[in-house]
Amino acid sequence: LDYQHVQVPFEITLWIMLASLAKIGFHLYNKLPSVVPESCLLVFVGLIMGGIIYGFNDKSPPVMDSDIFFLYLLPPIVLDAGYFMPSRPFFENIGTILLYAVVGTVWNVFGIGFSLYGICQVKAFRLQDVSLLHNLLFGSLIAAVDPVAVLAVFEEIHVNEKLHILVFGESLLNDAVTVVLYKLFRSFCEMPTIKSTDVFAGVGKFFVVGLGGVFVGLTFGMTAAFTTRFTKDIRVIEPLFVFLYSYLSYLTAEMFHLSGIVAIIACAMGMKRYVEANISLKSHTTVKYFMKMWSSVSDTLIFIFLGVSTIGENHEWNWPYICFTVIFCLVWRALGVLVLTFFVNRFHVNTITSKDQFIIAYGGLRGAICFSLVFLLPDFRRKKLFIAATTVVILFTVFVQGMTIRPLVDLLAVKRKRESAPTVGEQIHIRFLDHLLAGIEDISGHWGQYYWKDKLEYFNSKYLQKILLREYDQPKSSIVLLYEKLERKHAIELAAAGQLGHGPSHPAWLLWFSTFLCSNNIRTDITDKKLEDTLDPDVLENIQEILARNLYRIRRTGPAYNRHTLPGETEPVEHAKEILILRHKSL
Amino acid sequence: LDYQHVQVPFEITLWIMLASLAKIGFHLYNKLPSVVPESCLLVFVGLIMGGIIYGFNDKSPPVMDSDIFFLYLLPPIVLDAGYFMPSRPFFENIGTILLYAVVGTVWNVFGIGFSLYGICQVKAFRLQDVSLLHNLLFGSLIAAVDPVAVLAVFEEIHVNEKLHILVFGESLLNDAVTVVLYKLFRSFCEMPTIKSTDVFAGVGKFFVVGLGGVFVGLTFGMTAAFTTRFTKDIRVIEPLFVFLYSYLSYLTAEMFHLSGIVAIIACAMGMKRYVEANISLKSHTTVKYFMKMWSSVSDTLIFIFLGVSTIGENHEWNWPYICFTVIFCLVWRALGVLVLTFFVNRFHVNTITSKDQFIIAYGGLRGAICFSLVFLLPDFRRKKLFIAATTVVILFTVFVQGMTIRPLVDLLAVKRKRESAPTVGEQIHIRFLDHLLAGIEDISGHWGQYYWKDKLEYFNSKYLQKILLREYDQPKSSIVLLYEKLERKHAIELAAAGQLGHGPSHPAWLLWFSTFLCSNNIRTDITDKKLEDTLDPDVLENIQEILARNLYRIRRTGPAYNRHTLPGETEPVEHAKEILILRHKSL
Repeated sequence: LDYQHVQVPFEITLWIMLASLAKIGFHLYNKLPSVVPESCLLVFVGLIMGGIIYGFNDKSPPVMDSDIFFLYLLPPIVLDAGYFMPSRPFFENIGTILLYAVVGTVWNVFGIGFSLYGICQVKAFRLQDVSLLHNLLFGSLIAAVDPVAVLAVFEEIHVNEKLHILVFGESLLNDAVTVVLYKLFRSFCEMPTIKSTDVFAGVGKFFVVGLGGVFVGLTFGMTAAFTTRFTKDIRVIEPLFVFLYSYLSYLTAEMFHLSGIVAIIACAMGMKRYVEANISLKSHTTVKYFMKMWSSVSDTLIFIFLGVSTIGENHEWNWPYICFTVIFCLVWRALGVLVLTFFVNRFHVNTITSKDQFIIAYGGLRGAICFSLVFLLPDFRRKKLFIAATTVVILFTVFVQGMTIRPLVDLLAVKRKRESAPTVGEQIHIRFLDHLLAGIEDISGHWGQYYWKDKLEYFNSKYLQKILLREYDQPKSSIVLLYEKLERKHAIELAAAGQLGHGPSHPAWLLWFSTFLCSNNIRTDITDKKLEDTLDPDVLENIQEILARNLYRIRRTGPAYNRHTLPGETEPVEHAKEILILRHKSL
Repeated sequence: LDYQHVQVPFEITLWIMLASLAKIGFHLYNKLPSVVPESCLLVFVGLIMGGIIYGFNDKSPPVMDSDIFFLYLLPPIVLDAGYFMPSRPFFENIGTILLYAVVGTVWNVFGIGFSLYGICQVKAFRLQDVSLLHNLLFGSLIAAVDPVAVLAVFEEIHVNEKLHILVFGESLLNDAVTVVLYKLFRSFCEMPTIKSTDVFAGVGKFFVVGLGGVFVGLTFGMTAAFTTRFTKDIRVIEPLFVFLYSYLSYLTAEMFHLSGIVAIIACAMGMKRYVEANISLKSHTTVKYFMKMWSSVSDTLIFIFLGVSTIGENHEWNWPYICFTVIFCLVWRALGVLVLTFFVNRFHVNTITSKDQFIIAYGGLRGAICFSLVFLLPDFRRKKLFIAATTVVILFTVFVQGMTIRPLVDLLAVKRKRESAPTVGEQIHIRFLDHLLAGIEDISGHWGQYYWKDKLEYFNSKYLQKILLREYDQPKSSIVLLYEKLERKHAIELAAAGQLGHGPSHPAWLLWFSTFLCSNNIRTDITDKKLEDTLDPDVLENIQEILARNLYRIRRTGPAYNRHTLPGETEPVEHAKEILILRHKSL
């Protein structure tokens, strides 16, 4: 027996296996995941395992190594989040998200830090040796909402898309703030005196860390897109590039002390559309599948390790400090959301309701990032107290908030995610309105969101696509693609049912019509009144008939974020059956 | 800048990136890979890189770590080989393959070892301190044909399937022999005296190492199949199990000093049919794609590292020893193949031609396994000589034999792989003959290959499938599946061309007919003369007409092994077009 030789890969494989089997186990009993979030179950499994290890070895089980967490477990989850990020709601709410992520996090850090310092002044609590700087340092690591925890809970409660993207976007983008504040306070703790220039340098770092991350991410993303131009003869390694470049962007950002999370998200969002156009369909399936698989396994491992690491003798139990930490985390977040939303609502037509505000405040879950950061602290007398407080806050948010948020969402009747995605008609109108608003903004000289979106789209089709896409072609509009997909699905169903025959049909008309409506020239066409001129009544009637026959049902196209399924996988059988039945009726 | 922190993952990612980019680079110029095998190009890239590192650092570049090779680079390639192994030719020739792998390798080891010992006795060569045992140890590591090198060359020259499987199968299965002999001689070298019991124990170990590997592999394979029964609700982690269990089988075998290569092949071949039936289509695509991708990257890294490791000051250049090693490797292999094939041909109707024998002997390429084994040798005075000799043999076989084998195959007009896979008619007849031969063997009391195959099939459908498959069902025959695939492809093409309509067709008849012909009951049916009774002339005519219209063309279905493509990916457009054209003509 030569265990030494294979130990490292063997143990890694066994941990992953355990995580996967635990996941399968939970899903065997359908009732369990619908009541308790998976994250709680996994932490629970971790606690049991930690207890077993502790019982047998009589020493603390190994804690999750911060390096392993930041270098190997976190990137897959963030990559998955960035790659499947619904970009429209994200960019529509980018201002609000940034406000929550930057101002909100700073507010929380200082709020929690100063009020805990106040608690430390109470003599009865015996905490007078914890300095203000240490409290602020603790505040900086405990304040940030954790993307892994948020994802794990929010993907199961199906709140409306805007609410989801507000909480989730904040949890991702606050990484830049956390990195800066954490490193700033840590270096302040070790400095003898703090000059005012240091403080200003810290403020400047915000921008460097955040924008630097975006820059690194976009650079790698564009390089990835460019590389996939040349993979035509060797399809099997295409998926590799998506993973390699994203991971490199993360590592590079970390190397330069920039925000790795921001970098990998920028990389994923930047490369997605070009890579998808370049690589083969099978490669794309593999990319999506593997991303989901990896993030799912990482996420499982993180929660199990959280549980395992909780058991042991790393903790100093000072109850007042711990309890007040939990309370201040809740209170300052609630206050922050209220105040910030007040300002946001003053400048927006589409306001955030008070129910939504409650869920945003309540959904501020803490997770493994805080946990890893607290272990990365330099050794000092009260480190074990901080570890204990962090553990309690994480377990409180994951268990209490995580388990009660679903009943609360039901109770408050928070607006849910619409079950069906926008219909083809809606899509046409949304696109039409986008162009219209861009035109209005252009004329009125107000350079808002639509103006910039239009400019970016123009820059993309004029320059970027020519460089980054292999077969540069006027891209098909999403509606044409949707139509083709439906036809294909229908054909497969017919073939499966043995009903395939050969009769004439007119989809060419429909294709032409859709392309006509959705092409980028629609604005010009409408203003020039060409639409009516080019179509005679017969043709219009024909088109109407075809549309009535073919576009008969609201189709789900917008991919909603969910850890366990790939977009478009939901109930394909139902859809296909329905297509089949309706087709038969119509003939 | 904090490079230390991210160094390990960063450098690994960069190496993989380099390998992938090198692969893309070669395929950009289509002429290059058709003349020089990719393995040679990669070694060449490695040599250049090694030279650059050597030039800048003025010290030897790092050699490939044997642990990294055996634990991380080799398993993906072997898994890929085992998973995509064409099982029919493999099991048809298993006797010959085992003869080559076991007896042939032992022959080579002792042949090379003893004759090199003879060379060492020549005083002029100054090699008298190399003992017989050291020569045998060297023989044991240099004798084995390398699967990675064989795959890299043979997948490009497209020789006939039998020849391919003989060389490739030998290179995989000789691992058990190599492991035993290498470890035996290594321990003998360190022992003061060798008893005859030690030698007998060594012979016994052959069986333990080989059969133990098969046992470990099959155990993990069956467990993997069983696990995938329960993944219905959580499809995204399905591909993970294929990789985890195969890797665990390899590690477990290595841990117990069994043959890891044999274990992983047994695992992959054992689980394949059950896992494929259990997991979703997308999971299956991901499994296949990722397997190809990983093996492709591993293979690239191995050849690059081979080149890099060659440069440096690890070598002792004793030209007589090195030259005679190359000559003996060639001579003993040629002799071994001639003698063994003589015996094989006496017992087989389907003999191995003398051209085939030449290619088998000439295709005995050495590669990274020898290289890793020679670095694993304990330090002694002549280790650097062994390293030099091994390097030269590997480079000689990879460059000289690798580059000349294709012209030689052309020159000798060796029988090539048939371009088209068996037609549907052929498939029916092959299956029919299998059943017939099994029946004949049963009656005549000769328990041969067909008898055992039939028994295994019976055992499989009676017990194994019920335990291992989620939805146990009489499996569809491959011909029915093929027909469905063709119909689906046709439907997609029609949809794409906008020709989809609705008319009656009779594929139900065809399905029924195929199922009837190919079901496992065919033997009974034919002996009972039911076939003629159940079909009246009209029905038969109808079937004939449908068959004539639908099964008009030889279809490629048998997946031929190739590193760069997935089975069934070759020219789908051509096929689909042809279907379309013929359909239109027929109507």
